[in-house]
Amino acid sequence: MPSSSTAQKLAKGQKEISVSEFFEKNRQILGFDSPVKSLIMGVKEAVDNALDACEEAQILPDISVKIDRVDQKEYRVTVEDNGPGIVSTSMPNVFGRLLYGSRFHAVRQSRGQQGIGISATIMFGQITTGKPATARSKVEGAEAAKEIDIIIDTKKNMPVLLREDYIPWNDVPHGTRVTFYMNGRYVNGRQSVYEYLRQTAIVNPHACITFIDPEGKKYVFDRATDQMPPRTKEIKPHPDGIELGTLMNMIKATKERSLVKFLQNDFNRVSERVAKEICSASALPETTRPTHMTLESCKQLLEGIGKVKIMAPQVDCLSPIGDKLIRKGLKHVLEEVKPEFYAPPVTRDPKVHSGNPFLVEVGIVYGGGLPKDQQVQIYRFANRVPLLYQQGACVITKAIENTDWRRYGLEQRGGSGIPFGPAIILVHVASTKIPFTSEAKEAISSIPNIQEEIQLALKACGRNLKTHLNKKERKSKTRAKFEIVQEIIPLMAEKTASILDRPVPDLRGTITKIMNVVWIDDQVKFEKGRHKVKVSIYNYTPKQQKFSVHTIVPNGCLDEKSCSLAPTDVRDGEKVSWELPRIASTEIYHLTYELSGLDADMYQEVELYVSGINPVDVMGADPLPGDWDVEGLNFTETEAEEPEEEDADEEPDYDESGEDLNDDQ
Amino acid sequence: MPSSSTAQKLAKGQKEISVSEFFEKNRQILGFDSPVKSLIMGVKEAVDNALDACEEAQILPDISVKIDRVDQKEYRVTVEDNGPGIVSTSMPNVFGRLLYGSRFHAVRQSRGQQGIGISATIMFGQITTGKPATARSKVEGAEAAKEIDIIIDTKKNMPVLLREDYIPWNDVPHGTRVTFYMNGRYVNGRQSVYEYLRQTAIVNPHACITFIDPEGKKYVFDRATDQMPPRTKEIKPHPDGIELGTLMNMIKATKERSLVKFLQNDFNRVSERVAKEICSASALPETTRPTHMTLESCKQLLEGIGKVKIMAPQVDCLSPIGDKLIRKGLKHVLEEVKPEFYAPPVTRDPKVHSGNPFLVEVGIVYGGGLPKDQQVQIYRFANRVPLLYQQGACVITKAIENTDWRRYGLEQRGGSGIPFGPAIILVHVASTKIPFTSEAKEAISSIPNIQEEIQLALKACGRNLKTHLNKKERKSKTRAKFEIVQEIIPLMAEKTASILDRPVPDLRGTITKIMNVVWIDDQVKFEKGRHKVKVSIYNYTPKQQKFSVHTIVPNGCLDEKSCSLAPTDVRDGEKVSWELPRIASTEIYHLTYELSGLDADMYQEVELYVSGINPVDVMGADPLPGDWDVEGLNFTETEAEEPEEEDADEEPDYDESGEDLNDDQ
Repeated sequence: MPSSSTAQKLAKGQKEISVSEFFEKNRQILGFDSPVKSLIMGVKEAVDNALDACEEAQILPDISVKIDRVDQKEYRVTVEDNGPGIVSTSMPNVFGRLLYGSRFHAVRQSRGQQGIGISATIMFGQITTGKPATARSKVEGAEAAKEIDIIIDTKKNMPVLLREDYIPWNDVPHGTRVTFYMNGRYVNGRQSVYEYLRQTAIVNPHACITFIDPEGKKYVFDRATDQMPPRTKEIKPHPDGIELGTLMNMIKATKERSLVKFLQNDFNRVSERVAKEICSASALPETTRPTHMTLESCKQLLEGIGKVKIMAPQVDCLSPIGDKLIRKGLKHVLEEVKPEFYAPPVTRDPKVHSGNPFLVEVGIVYGGGLPKDQQVQIYRFANRVPLLYQQGACVITKAIENTDWRRYGLEQRGGSGIPFGPAIILVHVASTKIPFTSEAKEAISSIPNIQEEIQLALKACGRNLKTHLNKKERKSKTRAKFEIVQEIIPLMAEKTASILDRPVPDLRGTITKIMNVVWIDDQVKFEKGRHKVKVSIYNYTPKQQKFSVHTIVPNGCLDEKSCSLAPTDVRDGEKVSWELPRIASTEIYHLTYELSGLDADMYQEVELYVSGINPVDVMGADPLPGDWDVEGLNFTETEAEEPEEEDADEEPDYDESGEDLNDDQ
Repeated sequence: MPSSSTAQKLAKGQKEISVSEFFEKNRQILGFDSPVKSLIMGVKEAVDNALDACEEAQILPDISVKIDRVDQKEYRVTVEDNGPGIVSTSMPNVFGRLLYGSRFHAVRQSRGQQGIGISATIMFGQITTGKPATARSKVEGAEAAKEIDIIIDTKKNMPVLLREDYIPWNDVPHGTRVTFYMNGRYVNGRQSVYEYLRQTAIVNPHACITFIDPEGKKYVFDRATDQMPPRTKEIKPHPDGIELGTLMNMIKATKERSLVKFLQNDFNRVSERVAKEICSASALPETTRPTHMTLESCKQLLEGIGKVKIMAPQVDCLSPIGDKLIRKGLKHVLEEVKPEFYAPPVTRDPKVHSGNPFLVEVGIVYGGGLPKDQQVQIYRFANRVPLLYQQGACVITKAIENTDWRRYGLEQRGGSGIPFGPAIILVHVASTKIPFTSEAKEAISSIPNIQEEIQLALKACGRNLKTHLNKKERKSKTRAKFEIVQEIIPLMAEKTASILDRPVPDLRGTITKIMNVVWIDDQVKFEKGRHKVKVSIYNYTPKQQKFSVHTIVPNGCLDEKSCSLAPTDVRDGEKVSWELPRIASTEIYHLTYELSGLDADMYQEVELYVSGINPVDVMGADPLPGDWDVEGLNFTETEAEEPEEEDADEEPDYDESGEDLNDDQ
């Protein structure tokens, strides 16, 4: 075939593709790639919208989801909320048009951002069942609800209304209900509608979600709190990592008439001083007219921005889940498993990717009934939405794989890959803009900044885990030694005595000589809302001992009156020190205290430190850290018995994290 | 905030988002999520287009890629081809508009299908550098080339031409050149422009690709063949798995006036007989007017289609790489590693997903210098395009993870996950429509049909690997035994004889008694284009033996005249049998033959079978399989010495593959 005719032929075939036609043919991109997943996707899009709308209006969400089986393949899904409702003239576009929405241009954390989800769901329903969707909505004060039957003209990406009615909806002051039909498959298990709703409830404890499954079984995920998460604030773009194109668009669109005003008023965290600094770093006059700026001066400006240190964004555009809730959430999931340990969750400060603030939270659960010989389970959340699919494509998974978990007590071949062990790792990324890998919003892209933050959070939480595992191991070793010494030696003595027909000798001195250590053990009991702590100090050295113990308690929780010995110092409400009385050789001393105002799981382990004694002689407590700064008490022996490895390798740790971030294999 | 005002506020914020505006904000979806990857993506989109255009016009592709560094972050990329060129009026839309193209509606294998790639690249370049792209194209017979400087108005998704010229391009009869600037980072290594081009060359051996890197270093991937792959045929949709929505669209669009004609003329593989069968299975009259069909009758029709068996699609709409080329490709990559074994590649017959034909090819390389203690390497290809990123999101990876590789000789904890061992697994999926997980075209969605086909191909190829590993192990064991017997016994005899001062006895009888086996060994040499095979049969039993040996050779390659013993039977040009002469105890018999017309690596191992002898007495050959069907020769002993496990578990294997396909964790 001569090539000119091919060119002609190709030219003839070339045409525009409407966005809905594109997704009609590529619905796997929207997440509709298997019957099981399609049903989950449909529910998810509707529920995400409901939660967003309620939060926007600061209404405690009441959401109900109902799935009915129509025939072997077809299901009817109904999602209803008590949100602010949708203005009736907007309804056709909201439900019947792809790439249409209100949250796309806002710099602020929300679930839906693309303007694709619900209309794509309705389109998928229409493709697989031929049936229209029905949407009903009522705004506060309206006399009736508007109800429409809607399909999408995919060639044009425009809504087509098959019916339009105003109907009374008296029992509902305001809210939205959407019903659609789709081919799918309803299943139970780890990737299911039920699981999606359960995990949604975990990270949205202010919502009440009712679910009726195809068998008619009703589940209620009740709200755990009446407190709305604070409404996230909409902010201006942060200058960090902003792109030339975005900057040029902003310059084109600004109403300001000087560069310095533009910087100051159109960006987050740019004060007049910072704006002036940027101008000077860019070698551009502060009075430059934005309209007069050329490609070259825009590039200069971008470079200038890179040179000036700008404050991190405020956290109030984001809605982190928070320590307490992460614990609660994890506990909630794990009722049956009874894990041994919840590593204190880590919430990092906000950072910025391409001008969008984000933050990372990590929690780890360990032991108990969790399976020992399998890969750890990963719970991923983005803006309080659980991510059930595409784990392998997600930066969260990559960050976990690129962390050397052997340092934190998990098994991991070659120091990379998903580690093995009885653990669950929960990661939440919150951002004004989550960079998803596709419109299905199942996985977060491998943006280097984000991966680095996740890795730092994982390491911090990993160290919490390791501290626990170290302590556990140390204790169990000491205990084993103790048991052997205390059981075997008397038995040997008895046997020998009986053979030699002599009296059994007093062995306390002997045992002491063998142990030659001060052993500190602790117990925590939770009773009637109080944590009762007992610290037992065994002096198994041949001489008397006099030293101090120190501990850290959650701020303000120590009931000083409950202490069996008055503390010599309580610093910042959390650092507590006791100077112990002399303990004679072979004697035991018990120190008790109580904490109040904490949930049962918020104080599981006692962090104990000692001073005034050579730490080499102590088991069960670490030497007091140098930064504790207890006057006159600090005992600074040069060699500590067992240096904490984690501290030693913290530095190389951080260095590594910068590498290979682009390799997302 | 009262909810009605929220509804109003939300309504005000709602607006349409242009597709280019959407991707401008979500460029990670297009694959532009890190500087390294962005540069690769840009090159890839331009090269994919060039290859598609050349194949369309059946021109042997000459493609050159040049990357220049402009400054620390900015690069200039130029890609030129000798394709048919682009008609000048089409150029603005092709380069300056997203969702615009010629291949979107065609049912046929091609690289570009979305109408997004090159315009997205130009848009990304413009966002990061502010600079326009330059495109030049000339069609055959034209006097001059048209050249344009182009940017995209992202708010409108429309091209804006900054310059438009006709210029002479005398040394080029036809072709296209595109130059764009973008921020990026040029690296070497496993995920790099160089690697992308190298892997592209592997699976497109008809293309000559020249690459000049930013240092000015020039690489030429020369073409390995002058034979174009056959032009893939455009076909009509196949009825298998077609969706209701698509069916209804087709019914709406058809020019046919009866159902039976519609089925017959608008679908692939529907003859008049099949069309009538479908009508009857759907309980719809053959004369039904398509325009009169309701939702209900469309659903009936869909059910009817599901009940009728329809031939698999022709393979000529697809362009598989093929056995020979897969081997060549792998050899090419692995020059330095010198693998021990190339498992015979497997190409499966075409199947259908949602009306789109597809097929799967798999090759495995084992041993040699490949690292033993790491995960196997995975090479993924889709429609002859290498997939470098998002391995974890790809159905290919999932299929590999869900295969129990322990059965095929690789190490794999718990029988799932990416296996460990010195191996490379290559998988190619070819389809008229590759269901990518996102517009970046980096990973294939977990469509259950496709995953199943990949798993079947992996298992088939895995069995080839296992056969090799079994044989290797068996041989090495026998050899070890042999060596011990032949070295140690004479030494013992000598020693004993010298101590006793007696002559050393003849040990052949003793060795024979200890071995008590017929040992068959084979050697293959490749010389002057011929494979020279030597089969050595050692009778280490105490009696004479008379039996037959059989082997399978590549079809038609045996040079019968070269055989040291005339075959008693050559069946189907590939199954060869020899009746051996009597071999006395302790004697050796050598059988030699030659093959011609094969590449060196296409005959590495001799498959040997025996009959007429109890297989328990033989080492180095398996009993003749029952399906060989050699009259009078078949020796059917009930217990074979070492049953092939693979055959035994083939069935459960296939059963398993149907499960858990939806679980893409």
